[in-house]
Amino acid sequence: MKTVTAFDPRSGAACGEFATSGVDDVREAARAAAQAFESTEFGDTLRRARFLDLIADRVRQRASEIIEICSRETGLPLQRLTVEVERTSRQLSMFAEMVRAGRHLDAVIDTADPDLTPVPRPDMRRMNVPIGPVAVFGASNMPLAFGVLGGDTASALAAGCPVVIKGHPAHPGTGRLLAVIAAECVAEAGLPAGVFSYCLAADFEVGAALAQAPEITAVGFTGSLGGGRALSDIAAARPVPIPVYAEMGSLNPVVITEAALRSRSTDIADTIIGNVTAASGQYCTKPGLLFVPAGTAGDALVQTVADRLRQAQPCPLLSEPVKVRLTAAMEQLASSGDGTPVGESTPPSDVGYFVSPAVYVVGDGPLDAMPSAIEEYFGPIVLIRRYDSTDAVLEDISRLAGQLTGTVYSDPGDDVSRIVTALCRRVGRMVFDSSPVSVVVTDAQQHGGPYPASTAAWSTSVGSQAIFRFLRPVVFQNAPQGLLPAALRDDNRRSVERHRNSR
Amino acid sequence: MKTVTAFDPRSGAACGEFATSGVDDVREAARAAAQAFESTEFGDTLRRARFLDLIADRVRQRASEIIEICSRETGLPLQRLTVEVERTSRQLSMFAEMVRAGRHLDAVIDTADPDLTPVPRPDMRRMNVPIGPVAVFGASNMPLAFGVLGGDTASALAAGCPVVIKGHPAHPGTGRLLAVIAAECVAEAGLPAGVFSYCLAADFEVGAALAQAPEITAVGFTGSLGGGRALSDIAAARPVPIPVYAEMGSLNPVVITEAALRSRSTDIADTIIGNVTAASGQYCTKPGLLFVPAGTAGDALVQTVADRLRQAQPCPLLSEPVKVRLTAAMEQLASSGDGTPVGESTPPSDVGYFVSPAVYVVGDGPLDAMPSAIEEYFGPIVLIRRYDSTDAVLEDISRLAGQLTGTVYSDPGDDVSRIVTALCRRVGRMVFDSSPVSVVVTDAQQHGGPYPASTAAWSTSVGSQAIFRFLRPVVFQNAPQGLLPAALRDDNRRSVERHRNSR
Repeated sequence: MKTVTAFDPRSGAACGEFATSGVDDVREAARAAAQAFESTEFGDTLRRARFLDLIADRVRQRASEIIEICSRETGLPLQRLTVEVERTSRQLSMFAEMVRAGRHLDAVIDTADPDLTPVPRPDMRRMNVPIGPVAVFGASNMPLAFGVLGGDTASALAAGCPVVIKGHPAHPGTGRLLAVIAAECVAEAGLPAGVFSYCLAADFEVGAALAQAPEITAVGFTGSLGGGRALSDIAAARPVPIPVYAEMGSLNPVVITEAALRSRSTDIADTIIGNVTAASGQYCTKPGLLFVPAGTAGDALVQTVADRLRQAQPCPLLSEPVKVRLTAAMEQLASSGDGTPVGESTPPSDVGYFVSPAVYVVGDGPLDAMPSAIEEYFGPIVLIRRYDSTDAVLEDISRLAGQLTGTVYSDPGDDVSRIVTALCRRVGRMVFDSSPVSVVVTDAQQHGGPYPASTAAWSTSVGSQAIFRFLRPVVFQNAPQGLLPAALRDDNRRSVERHRNSR
Repeated sequence: MKTVTAFDPRSGAACGEFATSGVDDVREAARAAAQAFESTEFGDTLRRARFLDLIADRVRQRASEIIEICSRETGLPLQRLTVEVERTSRQLSMFAEMVRAGRHLDAVIDTADPDLTPVPRPDMRRMNVPIGPVAVFGASNMPLAFGVLGGDTASALAAGCPVVIKGHPAHPGTGRLLAVIAAECVAEAGLPAGVFSYCLAADFEVGAALAQAPEITAVGFTGSLGGGRALSDIAAARPVPIPVYAEMGSLNPVVITEAALRSRSTDIADTIIGNVTAASGQYCTKPGLLFVPAGTAGDALVQTVADRLRQAQPCPLLSEPVKVRLTAAMEQLASSGDGTPVGESTPPSDVGYFVSPAVYVVGDGPLDAMPSAIEEYFGPIVLIRRYDSTDAVLEDISRLAGQLTGTVYSDPGDDVSRIVTALCRRVGRMVFDSSPVSVVVTDAQQHGGPYPASTAAWSTSVGSQAIFRFLRPVVFQNAPQGLLPAALRDDNRRSVERHRNSR
């Protein structure tokens, strides 16, 4: 039996050993999910909503236990994890509420119109149905909100799709505890066990087998570009291809104007420093590339950020592989000449997985000719590109790939409309004069963006709209009342939200 | 210069020769589309709406000319094409109206909520933006409604996405005329020429180059499983993968109960005969597989359908390749033993591309062990599976892949709920006691289904919702009014439909 060892990032010491799943296990879990998908209990939306609320309550009740294990395995601070466990619980409740109101159904009723030309319209009633079992790949950097019971799992379960989750091997104790909570709730809610299965694996082979299982109808993933793309390729090559909803991070470019620097340089520096060090720089929305004006105001900002980051505490990264990858990438950045460190760089600590925050100034020349300058650095690293005109910024933006966010700091007198337009072409979220790091869980949220920020720019992985990734519409034409799903019947006993478009 | 020859399916005689596009042409068209995408003129929704209305008017004005050429090249009857040209025109107007009202934007405004926990909510305003240039592959069987100015083109243009269309080589004169109309309208509307480009090619290489062009951000396709899957594989393997919205047809299973046969056998037979012969059986919604009860009522239906189809006129198929493929597939069906013709089969005519309608009874044994029995026959062919119990039908349905439609003919006393549930798992549209062939263009429509009916079960290729395939959401966080798109500003000068979800 293979095992995975948990390590404390602050010391590097082993803090637990966990049995892993094999290829046969994930195939079996997928089969159980397909069976659970057919059960009338899980098909009942009110019962599913109660089940989600139950998990939400249980997570909240066991918050301190979850936070303690999770902090030990990830090095993330207790306060941050306290917010994250609350968010995890809230988003489960949010989906429960959505399902109870039937808002996920997007129900539309158009009664017959015999006079419509060129063809009369029959009675048409459309609503969403779940697509089937979903494979979820938990994130390393959001061990709770995008972990075993995170946004992908919550939205898939809410949609009516059983979930097989592959927990992240960097926090196996956290994953196991959350999986135990989920399994208890499945049993308590009287649902078939296959509604939720947890697998742990460090081998890509096992994850690949999960994405290939014929019963799996979609994949939710949060992680690296390499991992997301590999899953996407596997899913596209299946005899029956399935969608992969992969959120793969980005550079999150920030444009700062000279006028903004003159009016609030200190605020901007504070926000950037907070953003770069928060969660050790391991948010997918960390601003990784700043566009700072040439000249003295810009020089001062660069110096302030560099000085204060150098004085900041070293940050523990999530795992040894994260540290190894980041250290190698930083060496490549400096040795390629694409980036020059501002001030002396501190070598990584020997104890645990600590690294020191650092600032690099990007060289001249076209951005896309400097691959190291347009790569995501997962850790407390920020790259700065100096610019001398709006046209130069526009030229740079035109060479960037898809991003989760774009941010502009400007003053009312600045004409940044062309910059905003150019950034909007490439991002899922445009942020003004504030931090892009926090991604609130609301109806209006959009978290995703053109590839490689995500594989599905039309979808979001955060917020209530995330549920629509796991649904598909079915229209019922000329159906007798008795053969319609309850939500589409005239009596609408559960008072589901419906639309009548009548066009 | 390579050319494509048009043939009259009723005689097989050549009726026109047309220059084709090469790989360089489609690449150039994609580049022009990318330039047009950046133009402020095309970005203006009111102007786009006027442009769509202009095309709609022009198509209607030149209807008789279009119909005449199209009927000669496709063998489709004038009356059917009259309806199709009207539908083509109407759907252009429908999208114009939608865009004018801003319904495609799905605009949501949530103002700031500083008291929200665990994190305060900033001002969030979300709307859809166009994804970029779209490649459209025109259908052979819907030369107008899914041709050069059909649903894919109309929805992409309405979304704000320039279109490069590869017209179908089976009706090159129709395609050229429609392309001329479109180009005239582009010029008249004062839009850049790259908004619409027409290419004609018979080589797959050219279509592949179009799907691979880096400027192309999505593909709309209506056609065969082989063609759609090939494009889907190409698009998934790109350095930047893009979505392919391919509608690839299906068997469209129909379940008929014994009680339904007893109460209205004649009506059912009439509908089936009409469905199988309409447009020479070349609708993607043609019922291709009937489940008919064992016993005398079922025997009588099979005999009636077979007798009347044998007496029906031979049907001209769209092109010689369609005839060659259908004839070979029918031979394979009979020789494999998966299907037995009812009555004597008439050999295909020597003149033109005519074939005679035919009925085959499917053999015993599991459906998925008889590949010829679960294949789409594109032409006036229907397969019949006899059943002796609901369980047998359920077993058969469980072995079917994704379908565009499922149909049930039943009487109020029949318990067909399990059949409806099973069919719903596999279809995009459930039809009751009527023909599935007509697909009305409305808000409530859903045309698509699980693979292989389509590559994107969450989307529709018919109806107003088809526009959402070519849009993606962007959220604006804490944006000053002056930097917001007009549709998200407080003043809402164009009175765009908006939602305030405030959660």
